[in-house]
Amino acid sequence: MKILRNGSQSSIVGNQEWFTGTVRIDQPFQAEEPGRLSGATVTFEPGARTNWHTHPLGQTLLVTAGRGWAQRESGPVEEMQPGDVLWFAPGEKHWHGGTDTTSVTHIAIAEKADGKVVDWLEPVSDAHYRR
Amino acid sequence: MKILRNGSQSSIVGNQEWFTGTVRIDQPFQAEEPGRLSGATVTFEPGARTNWHTHPLGQTLLVTAGRGWAQRESGPVEEMQPGDVLWFAPGEKHWHGGTDTTSVTHIAIAEKADGKVVDWLEPVSDAHYRR
Repeated sequence: MKILRNGSQSSIVGNQEWFTGTVRIDQPFQAEEPGRLSGATVTFEPGARTNWHTHPLGQTLLVTAGRGWAQRESGPVEEMQPGDVLWFAPGEKHWHGGTDTTSVTHIAIAEKADGKVVDWLEPVSDAHYRR
Repeated sequence: MKILRNGSQSSIVGNQEWFTGTVRIDQPFQAEEPGRLSGATVTFEPGARTNWHTHPLGQTLLVTAGRGWAQRESGPVEEMQPGDVLWFAPGEKHWHGGTDTTSVTHIAIAEKADGKVVDWLEPVSDAHYRR
Protein backbone atom coordinates (compact mmCIF):
# COMPACT_ATOMS: atom_id res chain seq x y z
CA MET A 1 0.00 0.00 0.00
CA LYS A 2 1.31 3.39 -0.96
CA ILE A 3 -0.38 6.68 -0.15
CA LEU A 4 0.25 9.90 -2.03
CA ARG A 5 -1.01 12.47 0.45
CA ASN A 6 -3.08 15.45 -0.63
CA GLY A 7 -0.75 18.35 -1.33
CA SER A 8 2.38 16.22 -1.68
CA GLN A 9 2.48 16.57 -5.47
CA SER A 10 2.92 20.02 -6.99
CA SER A 11 0.36 21.21 -9.50
CA ILE A 12 1.62 21.00 -13.07
CA VAL A 13 1.00 23.61 -15.76
CA GLY A 14 -0.39 22.06 -18.94
CA ASN A 15 2.30 22.07 -21.64
CA GLN A 16 1.41 24.50 -24.44
CA GLU A 17 2.59 21.93 -26.99
CA TRP A 18 -0.49 19.90 -26.08
CA PHE A 19 -2.97 22.42 -24.68
CA THR A 20 -4.44 25.80 -25.63
CA GLY A 21 -5.03 28.21 -22.75
CA THR A 22 -4.49 27.69 -19.05
CA VAL A 23 -4.63 24.09 -17.90
CA ARG A 24 -3.63 22.70 -14.51
CA ILE A 25 -2.86 19.04 -13.77
CA ASP A 26 -3.18 17.77 -10.18
CA GLN A 27 -2.82 14.48 -8.35
CA PRO A 28 -1.26 12.41 -11.12
CA PHE A 29 -1.42 8.67 -10.42
CA GLN A 30 0.02 5.62 -12.10
CA ALA A 31 -0.40 1.90 -11.55
CA GLU A 32 2.76 -0.13 -11.08
CA GLU A 33 3.68 -2.76 -13.67
CA PRO A 34 2.10 -4.98 -14.85
CA GLY A 35 -0.78 -2.53 -14.30
CA ARG A 36 -0.93 -0.02 -17.13
CA LEU A 37 -3.43 2.67 -16.12
CA SER A 38 -2.52 6.23 -15.27
CA GLY A 39 -4.38 9.47 -14.87
CA ALA A 40 -4.73 12.85 -13.25
CA THR A 41 -7.20 15.56 -12.33
CA VAL A 42 -7.18 18.21 -15.05
CA THR A 43 -8.66 21.71 -14.78
CA PHE A 44 -9.26 23.89 -17.82
CA GLU A 45 -9.87 27.62 -17.45
CA PRO A 46 -12.59 29.09 -19.72
CA GLY A 47 -11.50 28.76 -23.34
CA ALA A 48 -8.76 26.24 -22.53
CA ARG A 49 -8.72 22.84 -24.23
CA THR A 50 -6.54 19.92 -25.22
CA ASN A 51 -5.10 19.56 -28.69
CA TRP A 52 -6.78 16.96 -30.83
CA HIS A 53 -5.41 13.60 -29.67
CA THR A 54 -5.94 9.85 -29.57
CA HIS A 55 -5.31 7.16 -26.95
CA PRO A 56 -4.13 3.70 -28.00
CA LEU A 57 -6.45 1.98 -25.49
CA GLY A 58 -9.09 4.69 -25.08
CA GLN A 59 -9.75 7.23 -22.35
CA THR A 60 -12.26 7.66 -19.52
CA LEU A 61 -13.19 11.11 -18.17
CA LEU A 62 -15.02 11.61 -14.87
CA VAL A 63 -16.26 15.20 -14.73
CA THR A 64 -16.03 16.59 -11.19
CA ALA A 65 -16.67 20.36 -11.46
CA GLY A 66 -17.68 23.12 -13.85
CA ARG A 67 -19.01 22.71 -17.36
CA GLY A 68 -17.00 21.75 -20.42
CA TRP A 69 -17.05 20.73 -24.02
CA ALA A 70 -15.82 17.56 -25.72
CA GLN A 71 -15.86 16.49 -29.36
CA ARG A 72 -14.82 13.52 -31.42
CA GLU A 73 -13.75 14.11 -35.00
CA SER A 74 -16.80 14.63 -37.25
CA GLY A 75 -19.13 14.58 -34.26
CA PRO A 76 -21.05 17.38 -32.55
CA VAL A 77 -19.58 19.31 -29.65
CA GLU A 78 -21.06 17.78 -26.49
CA GLU A 79 -21.44 19.45 -23.13
CA MET A 80 -20.04 17.71 -20.07
CA GLN A 81 -21.07 18.40 -16.50
CA PRO A 82 -20.23 16.99 -13.05
CA GLY A 83 -21.22 13.36 -12.72
CA ASP A 84 -20.95 12.70 -16.45
CA VAL A 85 -18.63 9.87 -17.51
CA LEU A 86 -17.11 10.08 -21.01
CA TRP A 87 -15.46 7.28 -22.94
CA PHE A 88 -13.30 7.75 -26.04
CA ALA A 89 -12.55 4.58 -27.98
CA PRO A 90 -9.02 3.45 -28.85
CA GLY A 91 -7.70 5.63 -31.66
CA GLU A 92 -10.71 7.98 -31.64
CA LYS A 93 -9.52 11.50 -32.46
CA HIS A 94 -11.01 13.99 -30.01
CA TRP A 95 -10.50 16.99 -27.75
CA HIS A 96 -11.95 18.24 -24.45
CA GLY A 97 -11.80 21.39 -22.36
CA GLY A 98 -13.74 24.22 -20.77
CA THR A 99 -16.52 26.05 -22.52
CA ASP A 100 -15.83 29.56 -23.80
CA THR A 101 -17.21 30.96 -20.52
CA THR A 102 -16.67 28.26 -17.88
CA SER A 103 -13.91 26.17 -16.40
CA VAL A 104 -14.21 22.41 -16.11
CA THR A 105 -12.40 19.81 -14.00
CA HIS A 106 -12.26 16.12 -14.86
CA ILE A 107 -10.33 13.07 -13.81
CA ALA A 108 -8.75 11.52 -16.92
CA ILE A 109 -7.78 7.84 -16.93
CA ALA A 110 -6.13 5.86 -19.73
CA GLU A 111 -4.10 2.72 -20.27
CA LYS A 112 -0.76 2.63 -21.99
CA ALA A 113 0.12 0.36 -24.92
CA ASP A 114 3.75 -0.15 -25.87
CA GLY A 115 4.66 2.40 -23.20
CA LYS A 116 2.50 5.15 -24.71
CA VAL A 117 -0.75 6.56 -23.31
CA VAL A 118 -1.54 9.35 -25.80
CA ASP A 119 -0.72 10.57 -29.31
CA TRP A 120 -0.90 14.35 -29.49
CA LEU A 121 -2.06 16.02 -32.71
CA GLU A 122 -2.76 19.60 -33.85
CA PRO A 123 -4.36 22.32 -31.68
CA VAL A 124 -8.10 22.97 -31.82
CA SER A 125 -8.20 26.28 -33.68
CA ASP A 126 -10.06 29.25 -32.24
CA ALA A 127 -12.36 29.21 -35.28
CA HIS A 128 -13.24 25.56 -34.71
CA TYR A 129 -13.56 25.96 -30.94
CA ARG A 130 -15.81 29.03 -31.12
CA ARG A 131 -17.74 27.79 -34.21
CA MET B 1 -17.37 8.90 -27.83
CA LYS B 2 -19.95 7.71 -25.35
CA ILE B 3 -21.36 9.79 -22.51
CA LEU B 4 -22.99 8.32 -19.44
CA ARG B 5 -24.94 11.29 -18.13
CA ASN B 6 -25.08 12.14 -14.45
CA GLY B 7 -28.10 10.43 -12.92
CA SER B 8 -28.54 7.92 -15.75
CA GLN B 9 -27.18 5.02 -13.70
CA SER B 10 -29.00 3.96 -10.54
CA SER B 11 -27.06 3.86 -7.30
CA ILE B 12 -26.14 0.30 -6.31
CA VAL B 13 -26.27 -1.03 -2.76
CA GLY B 14 -23.00 -2.74 -1.79
CA ASN B 15 -23.51 -6.50 -1.65
CA GLN B 16 -23.29 -7.79 1.94
CA GLU B 17 -21.27 -10.75 0.71
CA TRP B 18 -18.43 -8.32 0.07
CA PHE B 19 -19.09 -5.38 2.40
CA THR B 20 -19.94 -4.78 6.07
CA GLY B 21 -22.37 -1.96 6.75
CA THR B 22 -23.98 0.45 4.34
CA VAL B 23 -22.09 1.01 1.11
CA ARG B 24 -23.30 2.78 -2.02
CA ILE B 25 -21.77 2.45 -5.48
CA ASP B 26 -22.32 5.22 -8.03
CA GLN B 27 -21.25 6.01 -11.57
CA PRO B 28 -19.67 2.68 -12.49
CA PHE B 29 -17.48 2.90 -15.58
CA GLN B 30 -15.68 0.37 -17.72
CA ALA B 31 -13.27 0.64 -20.61
CA GLU B 32 -14.15 -1.27 -23.76
CA GLU B 33 -11.90 -4.12 -24.91
CA PRO B 34 -8.96 -4.24 -25.33
CA GLY B 35 -8.98 -1.71 -22.48
CA ARG B 36 -9.25 -3.46 -19.14
CA LEU B 37 -9.85 -0.79 -16.50
CA SER B 38 -13.08 -0.34 -14.60
CA GLY B 39 -14.18 1.52 -11.53
CA ALA B 40 -16.84 3.35 -9.60
CA THR B 41 -17.44 5.94 -6.91
CA VAL B 42 -17.95 4.16 -3.59
CA THR B 43 -19.39 5.70 -0.42
CA PHE B 44 -19.09 4.02 2.97
CA GLU B 45 -21.26 5.12 5.88
CA PRO B 46 -19.52 5.31 9.28
CA GLY B 47 -18.41 1.83 10.29
CA ALA B 48 -18.86 0.40 6.80
CA ARG B 49 -15.95 -1.30 5.02
CA THR B 50 -15.01 -3.78 2.34
CA ASN B 51 -14.16 -7.37 3.11
CA TRP B 52 -10.51 -8.21 2.91
CA HIS B 53 -9.71 -8.59 -0.79
CA THR B 54 -7.01 -8.58 -3.45
CA HIS B 55 -6.82 -7.29 -7.04
CA PRO B 56 -4.87 -9.24 -9.66
CA LEU B 57 -3.42 -6.02 -11.15
CA GLY B 58 -3.68 -3.71 -8.15
CA GLN B 59 -6.10 -0.94 -7.26
CA THR B 60 -6.03 2.87 -7.19
CA LEU B 61 -8.25 4.86 -4.82
CA LEU B 62 -8.88 8.60 -5.23
CA VAL B 63 -10.47 9.91 -2.04
CA THR B 64 -13.05 12.60 -2.80
CA ALA B 65 -14.95 13.22 0.45
CA GLY B 66 -15.05 12.38 4.15
CA ARG B 67 -12.41 10.51 6.11
CA GLY B 68 -11.72 6.80 5.99
CA TRP B 69 -9.44 3.98 6.99
CA ALA B 70 -7.44 1.55 4.86
CA GLN B 71 -5.13 -1.30 5.82
CA ARG B 72 -2.98 -3.87 4.11
CA GLU B 73 -2.47 -7.19 5.82
CA SER B 74 0.11 -6.88 8.63
CA GLY B 75 0.29 -3.11 8.17
CA PRO B 76 -1.05 -0.27 10.31
CA VAL B 77 -4.50 1.20 9.74
CA GLU B 78 -3.97 4.36 7.69
CA GLU B 79 -6.27 7.34 7.49
CA MET B 80 -7.37 8.56 4.10
CA GLN B 81 -8.71 12.00 3.34
CA PRO B 82 -9.86 13.92 0.25
CA GLY B 83 -7.05 14.41 -2.23
CA ASP B 84 -5.16 11.33 -1.05
CA VAL B 85 -4.34 8.72 -3.70
CA LEU B 86 -3.89 5.12 -2.53
CA TRP B 87 -2.27 2.28 -4.43
CA PHE B 88 -2.57 -1.41 -3.52
CA ALA B 89 -0.15 -3.71 -5.31
CA PRO B 90 -1.27 -6.76 -7.30
CA GLY B 91 -2.27 -9.51 -4.87
CA GLU B 92 -1.89 -7.29 -1.79
CA LYS B 93 -4.55 -8.29 0.76
CA HIS B 94 -6.29 -5.19 2.11
CA TRP B 95 -9.54 -3.48 3.08
CA HIS B 96 -10.87 0.09 3.06
CA GLY B 97 -13.89 1.94 4.37
CA GLY B 98 -15.20 4.71 6.59
CA THR B 99 -13.87 5.36 10.06
CA ASP B 100 -15.99 4.35 13.02
CA THR B 101 -17.48 7.87 13.12
CA THR B 102 -17.23 9.23 9.55
CA SER B 103 -18.26 8.35 6.04
CA VAL B 104 -15.79 8.35 3.19
CA THR B 105 -16.16 8.48 -0.60
CA HIS B 106 -13.51 7.34 -3.04
CA ILE B 107 -13.22 6.55 -6.71
CA ALA B 108 -11.86 3.01 -7.06
CA ILE B 109 -10.09 1.96 -10.27
CA ALA B 110 -8.63 -1.43 -11.15
CA GLU B 111 -7.64 -3.51 -14.16
CA LYS B 112 -8.93 -6.96 -14.86
CA ALA B 113 -6.75 -10.00 -15.54
CA ASP B 114 -8.29 -13.11 -17.06
CA GLY B 115 -11.67 -11.40 -16.83
CA LYS B 116 -11.42 -10.82 -13.07
CA VAL B 117 -10.90 -7.53 -11.24
CA VAL B 118 -11.10 -8.61 -7.59
CA ASP B 119 -10.87 -11.66 -5.33
CA TRP B 120 -13.11 -11.27 -2.30
CA LEU B 121 -12.04 -12.77 1.03
CA GLU B 122 -13.40 -12.78 4.61
CA PRO B 123 -15.10 -9.80 6.30
CA VAL B 124 -13.11 -7.44 8.50
CA SER B 125 -14.37 -8.41 11.96
CA ASP B 126 -15.74 -5.78 14.35
CA ALA B 127 -12.93 -6.61 16.78
CA HIS B 128 -10.28 -6.03 14.12
CA TYR B 129 -11.98 -2.92 12.75
CA ARG B 130 -12.46 -1.27 16.16
CA ARG B 131 -9.08 -2.53 17.50
